[in-house]
Amino acid sequence: MRIPNHIGIIPDGNRRWAVGKGLSKEKGYEIGLDPGLVLFKLCQQVGIKEITYYGFTTDNTKRPTEQRKAFTDACINAVKMLSKEDASLLVVGNKDSPMFPKELLPFTSRKAFGNGRMRVNFLVNYGWEWDLNHLKVGDPTKKNIINYIKSYDVSRVDLIIRWGGRRRLSGFLPVQSIYADFYVVDDYWPDFEPEHFFQALRWYNEQDITLGG
Amino acid sequence: MRIPNHIGIIPDGNRRWAVGKGLSKEKGYEIGLDPGLVLFKLCQQVGIKEITYYGFTTDNTKRPTEQRKAFTDACINAVKMLSKEDASLLVVGNKDSPMFPKELLPFTSRKAFGNGRMRVNFLVNYGWEWDLNHLKVGDPTKKNIINYIKSYDVSRVDLIIRWGGRRRLSGFLPVQSIYADFYVVDDYWPDFEPEHFFQALRWYNEQDITLGG
Repeated sequence: MRIPNHIGIIPDGNRRWAVGKGLSKEKGYEIGLDPGLVLFKLCQQVGIKEITYYGFTTDNTKRPTEQRKAFTDACINAVKMLSKEDASLLVVGNKDSPMFPKELLPFTSRKAFGNGRMRVNFLVNYGWEWDLNHLKVGDPTKKNIINYIKSYDVSRVDLIIRWGGRRRLSGFLPVQSIYADFYVVDDYWPDFEPEHFFQALRWYNEQDITLGG
Repeated sequence: MRIPNHIGIIPDGNRRWAVGKGLSKEKGYEIGLDPGLVLFKLCQQVGIKEITYYGFTTDNTKRPTEQRKAFTDACINAVKMLSKEDASLLVVGNKDSPMFPKELLPFTSRKAFGNGRMRVNFLVNYGWEWDLNHLKVGDPTKKNIINYIKSYDVSRVDLIIRWGGRRRLSGFLPVQSIYADFYVVDDYWPDFEPEHFFQALRWYNEQDITLGG
């Protein structure tokens, strides 16, 4: 079976899940932590080399304060949880903004935890414009793009899995996602099941790779 | 019904269609012209304001010569065909390369034909790196991105429809596609039917618009 090197995870549907349970929207985030760890371990088992979680974006921070606090706390806890695993961990996002949680500053340069074999990236206060705008201070004579964006230490994504039914990227790593195959799970992220992941892998195995050629 | 302002069209599957008919791969391109015109007229009827066709990319030009010639000719003929309709027409792509057909140079600045109401963009020898690299000569103090990419005269895409079953963007306008909803038709582009378009519109009507918020 052809296994992707790098998987992007868009864990969407937390608020819709909460509303469906009769809870207020911000209650949907903390419940997403356990699925994130289960997924991490599944990736380890099948030999994925790199995984990127879409935490929250600069767009998301315009939401009501209680939601913003809830998803920020969930991201802090998720990163701390992953730092107890075997992971080469990197948090990517605009750390110069007050929306970036201080607790995650130590993770903004890549650090190995445990055997540090799998690369794990966590997008926190990430913005596609923030990422691409850095190109404007790049060297115009050099063509390479990935070296000049803020997320330069995140490699090309092979497979993006989005939970929650929506078929769009919503600003997820536009450069690294150029050639990515895009798999959508209709269930909300808090209803994550390992079978979703295996379905995505089986589907990916049937795709060809052309890199636009 | 909520109608998208701007639709992106990825007309994929021409070569697979040809092979399935026992033809050589390059025979699959010319047959894609009529569907392109039918789709254009459907867009006019429902009041779409802008449409972008993915012609060919700088990646594609690495294919065998007979294929390259066939898809280049198909693009030339498609643009000439559209210039007989009511359209505000623009060809976007790297015109400084020998791969750019001379016949399309007159279309590289936007021109109105007929009543020129619908904006029609045609990507020819387009490359996502070519497009984004232009940011490096942008003004680093100004945040706006779309003004500094090569495709600045192509607006944000609301709905992308891709024929041929593949669920990936393959370099299609990465900045304008950030928030686009992505609809995939399994049939190959030469097997286009108006019902594909209406299915995509009905599906789009059920999506929400958040622009990442």
